[in-house]
Amino acid sequence: MLDVRFLGFDVFGTVVDWRGSVARELAPFLRRYGLEHLDPASVADEWRALYQPSMEPIRRGERGWTRLSVLHRENLETLLRRYLDPSSVQDAELADLARAWERLDPWSDVVAGLTRLKRRFVIGTLSNGNVSLMTWLAKWGGLPWDVIAGAEPTQSYKPQPETYIRSAALLELKVEEVALVAAHNDDLAAARACGLKTVFIPRPTERGSGQTIDLQPNEAWDVIDEDFVALARRLGC
Amino acid sequence: MLDVRFLGFDVFGTVVDWRGSVARELAPFLRRYGLEHLDPASVADEWRALYQPSMEPIRRGERGWTRLSVLHRENLETLLRRYLDPSSVQDAELADLARAWERLDPWSDVVAGLTRLKRRFVIGTLSNGNVSLMTWLAKWGGLPWDVIAGAEPTQSYKPQPETYIRSAALLELKVEEVALVAAHNDDLAAARACGLKTVFIPRPTERGSGQTIDLQPNEAWDVIDEDFVALARRLGC
Repeated sequence: MLDVRFLGFDVFGTVVDWRGSVARELAPFLRRYGLEHLDPASVADEWRALYQPSMEPIRRGERGWTRLSVLHRENLETLLRRYLDPSSVQDAELADLARAWERLDPWSDVVAGLTRLKRRFVIGTLSNGNVSLMTWLAKWGGLPWDVIAGAEPTQSYKPQPETYIRSAALLELKVEEVALVAAHNDDLAAARACGLKTVFIPRPTERGSGQTIDLQPNEAWDVIDEDFVALARRLGC
Repeated sequence: MLDVRFLGFDVFGTVVDWRGSVARELAPFLRRYGLEHLDPASVADEWRALYQPSMEPIRRGERGWTRLSVLHRENLETLLRRYLDPSSVQDAELADLARAWERLDPWSDVVAGLTRLKRRFVIGTLSNGNVSLMTWLAKWGGLPWDVIAGAEPTQSYKPQPETYIRSAALLELKVEEVALVAAHNDDLAAARACGLKTVFIPRPTERGSGQTIDLQPNEAWDVIDEDFVALARRLGC
């Protein structure tokens, strides 16, 4: 079925509802600064839209390794500059808001599914989130990871091949002994190109009710299931 | 009491009974190779005695970063050369025996204590064991770590200051927000010198019934308790 030892999970979107959770964290901040006319979910989208571009200079080697929590903070300041003077916000308040990404709620099937999958597999993050961010996020949502793999331990950002290949090496496994579980076709394509197995779990409301991408698998991924509990059932956990 | 956010645990000796477990793993191997006259626990001690010297060239920068699982394998071959021709042993059998260090039993208080401590603290390894070794060891013993810190993520070996300082940085914490929990006075002294808090839990039979060191605290460590359950109780978990 899926003859692997490590299930590595994409996190933002696949495991947690970043959009709804960041919007919830943004709402009181926006009200406090007279920005209640902005839709918090749209502001969350704007913040998230800065995510990929902020990793690009690091992927290209133009900027040294920088963990995602630092990029989130920088991107928050870029975002706020569109609406207010960020220097008018207390540093502690900015720092706390940047850590909204540590307070993202898991989708409803996640904890039950992971708890079952953990019985038969090593489960861990294979995310661009850094170790600290992933750890606090796990505490927030009760995510029972065995290990944090992905960007920081491999000093690379998905979809760079190094993130997938070195995550397998971190566990002293061959790439074919690792499966990426993700809601994003592009992530899975990059993992497959490195030799990993692939599991697609769609998250059709990750980007809100009008989501148009990643509603369906673009390739014949090794496993396709509706959620983590269905995946656990299929894998005999 | 202990105002920290992360409890980082020494593992070999503090969390798991390496000597008894490695002896158990060695016994059938020794019988198979006509070495039943050797005491498995003494051979475990010989293997362990190669541990510190094998890290020394790496600490001194004379050898590039090498994970502990590789050193365990090299040290096993050094050890076996005293008693037989290691080339007479199948590579797969040597590899499996080297992984004895992934099959170490926790002391009897450990799982109950960690499960309680995890409610209030981030708990993780602050060990010289590499990520893979620590992950499989956790699966073996049911150790509910939140995170693997220590040697591999910091590319250093205790008691180098980098192991303690960068483990705090990995979690984006100040050193004083981290406590080392260990059964070894020298480890605690090195952690304290870096600004970490210190918790001493004696393991009076780690080195067998004739143990002479680390039976008592050598300094006034921040917390001293008899086991992990007592520690959890003291810390209100």
